[in-house]
Order: sequence, then C-alpha cells, then structure tokens
Amino acid sequence: MPTINAYVELSPEEKEAKKDYIDRHSPFITVAKSAKAGEKLAVNVRLGKNYSHPDDTDHYINEIKLFDRETLLATATLISGINGGQGNKGQAEVTFFIVPNKNLKLTALSYCTKHGLWQSDPAEVEVVA
Amino acid sequence: MPTINAYVELSPEEKEAKKDYIDRHSPFITVAKSAKAGEKLAVNVRLGKNYSHPDDTDHYINEIKLFDRETLLATATLISGINGGQGNKGQAEVTFFIVPNKNLKLTALSYCTKHGLWQSDPAEVEVVA
Amino acid sequence: MPTINAYVELSPEEKEAKKDYIDRHSPFITVAKSAKAGEKLAVNVRLGKNYSHPDDTDHYINEIKLFDRETLLATATLISGINGGQGNKGQAEVTFFIVPNKNLKLTALSYCTKHGLWQSDPAEVEVVA
Amino acid sequence: MPTINAYVELSPEEKEAKKDYIDRHSPFITVAKSAKAGEKLAVNVRLGKNYSHPDDTDHYINEIKLFDRETLLATATLISGINGGQGNKGQAEVTFFIVPNKNLKLTALSYCTKHGLWQSDPAEVEVVA
Repeated sequence: MPTINAYVELSPEEKEAKKDYIDRHSPFITVAKSAKAGEKLAVNVRLGKNYSHPDDTDHYINEIKLFDRETLLATATLISGINGGQGNKGQAEVTFFIVPNKNLKLTALSYCTKHGLWQSDPAEVEVVA
Repeated sequence: MPTINAYVELSPEEKEAKKDYIDRHSPFITVAKSAKAGEKLAVNVRLGKNYSHPDDTDHYINEIKLFDRETLLATATLISGINGGQGNKGQAEVTFFIVPNKNLKLTALSYCTKHGLWQSDPAEVEVVA
Repeated sequence: MPTINAYVELSPEEKEAKKDYIDRHSPFITVAKSAKAGEKLAVNVRLGKNYSHPDDTDHYINEIKLFDRETLLATATLISGINGGQGNKGQAEVTFFIVPNKNLKLTALSYCTKHGLWQSDPAEVEVVA
Repeated sequence: MPTINAYVELSPEEKEAKKDYIDRHSPFITVAKSAKAGEKLAVNVRLGKNYSHPDDTDHYINEIKLFDRETLLATATLISGINGGQGNKGQAEVTFFIVPNKNLKLTALSYCTKHGLWQSDPAEVEVVA
C-alpha cells in the first residue's frame, strides 16, 4: 500500500525545508464546530497552512477526498494549470457542501503527483437537531 | 453521444413540473465578473436556482465538472448521501478555487444519475494584470 | 459548452496530419455484438485506431467515460505517465466490465488535456435472456 | 483517517460470513510476472477471489485505484448498476493498460460505499529492456 503521510508539528530546530515540505502537502479542513441537522454546511479543504505548492504539469495536487469516518463523501480531481500553472505556487483548495444528519468526524485525503498521499487531522462537527 | 441538456427560461404558461425539472438539474456558476491574474478566484457551481434535487441512492447528482472553454479544470465527484441522503432534497454545490492568467469563459457540466448530462450557461471573467 | 469532437473518415486526399489528429483522439469501443443478460461483458475502449497519442505531462489522455445511452456507467481517470510518460506515444486504453440486463447502446467520451472532449461512435449490443 | 482494510487468509475454523466479507471486498491484481519496457501491459483488478459483492444503489464498489509504489496510475470510478444493479451480485472489475519503464510494485485500493477502503496485496512485475 502507498504510504499515507500526515502533518506533524516540527520543533523550531527542525529544518525549514522539511517544514515547508510537510505543510504544503497536508490538507487542512476548515469547518464550523457545530451545525444543524438537515442544513447545508460548507467544508473547506486547503493544502498548505503557511506554505504553498507548485502547480507544474509533472508536480501538482491531483486529488482531494473528503471522508466522514469510513465513508467517502466527495472527491475533487484537479488538473495541473488550475492553480496558475507552470512556475506558479499556490494552495490547492476546494469547498464541498454537505448536509449532515449526525455528528461528523471529517478527514481529507489528498494526492500529490510526486509526493503521494497525505491525510488531514480529523475535524469534528457537532450536529444538532 | 448522450444528450447534453441545458437551462431554458420557460414562459409563465409552461408547466411548473417542467420548470422544476429543468431548474433543479441545471448548473449555475457564481463568480466575480473580473479578477486579478495570478490571484485565487472562487468559482461556485450550484445545481438548481430556485428548485432542489433529491439525494436518493438511485437518483442523485454524481458529478460537477468545470471547464474554461475546451479545457477541463476540475471535477467534483459526489456520492449519494452528501446532501442529506434518501428522502432529502437539496442543491448539489461545490466551490472550486482557480488561479487565472487570462480571461475566462467558464462552463459547468453536471451529471444526474437518472437524467443525464446538463451544462451551465457560460460565465465570463475579465482577468487583469 | 466545450466542443465535443468525433471521428470522421477522411478521403485519401485529405491531409495525413489531420487523419492522425482525429484518429489518435477518438475513442473506439470493442465489444461483442451480443451478450447474455446477467453475465459479465468486457467493453474495451482505446484511443486511436491506427495512430497513437503522446503521454506528456502537459498533453495526455486524462479521462475515458463509458455511457449506455444517457447513463454513465464508469469513468477511468488516467495520470500522465501511465502510458510510458514524456517522449512516449501510445494508445490510452481501458477495459470496463459490465453486467447488462437489456440491449446496450454504448458510447465513450474521452478528454485530452490539450484537445478537449472526443466521443466514440455508438456500439450496440443485443442482450438476450 | 479511514481504516484501510486488507485481505487475510482465514483458518478453516473461522466463520464463512467473515471469509465472504473479506474476500468480496478485497481487490486482487492479475498481471504478468515480467514485461518489456515500453510495451503495453494489461493489469486486471477484480474485487472478490471466490465471493461476489452486491451492486445495490446503497451498497456498491465505487472506486478502484491502481498505484505503483507511491504513484497513482489510474482510477476507475463506477456507478451502481454497472454490475447488474439492485439484487445482483458480481465482481467489480477493470483492466488498466500501462506502459512501464522500470520494475513495478503495483497495489490496488478500492472503496465500497458501505465498508470503506480495501487494499490489495502488492503485485511485482519485472520490467526488462
């Protein structure tokens, strides 16, 4: 199985290059902490908190998946060029809209064509009636 | 080739059922009329302007594609349940983020598992340096 | 809406370059003419009958979809490199397996990252009980 | 992160239901043990060695991905109904065609809409010039 990488906080002593590498590949979920059952909820996924990733034809963010626990909700498949193209750096990003019925435990899984699979930390949403 | 359907304005005399059918399947793009080259631009695609679509396992919006002219930028693949699931009606929606270099002529193409392919009107964005 | 291109037979007088361009982008379906209901059926889709397409990171076959009339059955999403990568030419190809219940009228729709959407001729399959 | 499940051989004493559950969800790769560099190679992925999986609208095999080590080569996205539809059981299957340049270590990752992600054993292919 391909490795699934994840964001880790590095100490101040650890190398800048490593921080950049990990940060720019990691998906970060932004979502409200609580939501109403049956109402639409925006779930933003962005790759890179403080750093940005190339959008070169041989090196780009190709896929962003959103799961609730074991259940796949949606996949965004991106084509190189969407984020400015060759020579540009940016943060791959998508906002999915979901209608929850129960508490959520969301994770995102993304794929870089050079550096493989990366998962986000889980984001929990309390869903009230 | 499968038919590609599209939104049409109906006269007041035309049937409500037909209006609902056409509206709820048609993708509508919401995007700024002008943007800066090299800066991130949100492009929202929503299915249904005034009406909403079921999210049943045998009848749901499965795919939303965004094109700039002939060029595919991104695809969102949805799984039934994302929009509340069986018995719920809603509006499938996604926001893509793109970084344009030149004027855009965006169209969206979506797929309903019962009623096939539907395209949006084009949305033009003037992109300035 | 993006143009949907299709294969056309050219006369002997028409330019070789145009023949190559059209042939290498067109999906061709290979499938049995008749099949048994409820039994698995292989449906091969290949791009290019006599010519082959580059697999460069900025120019490759990204997607092959299979429809039965208006109904999407499956999508193959390819990543540049699958067909030998930069400098190589080949024919993007996938075999889907489907279990039909009734007569089929299959079409394939493919996407080249430089030359857009291309559809196949329909392939009809008589499905007997 | 969603769990990634995998095939395990069960002892004769272990329950038939568990065997069926594990077998029908596990992707199995069938590919030649050696291949020529630059020549097309068929890679078949089938879910279920001895058992078959439902193709119900709320329970079906939605995705089959093929990786070479950390690198994604292709994704097949399936829609319920491709394998006979409601009430039918079968084995989701796809054949990808790839052109290798070096030794391969292939794995498949599949997704069941009820039972999540499943990976195959790796399949190694010696690629000779």
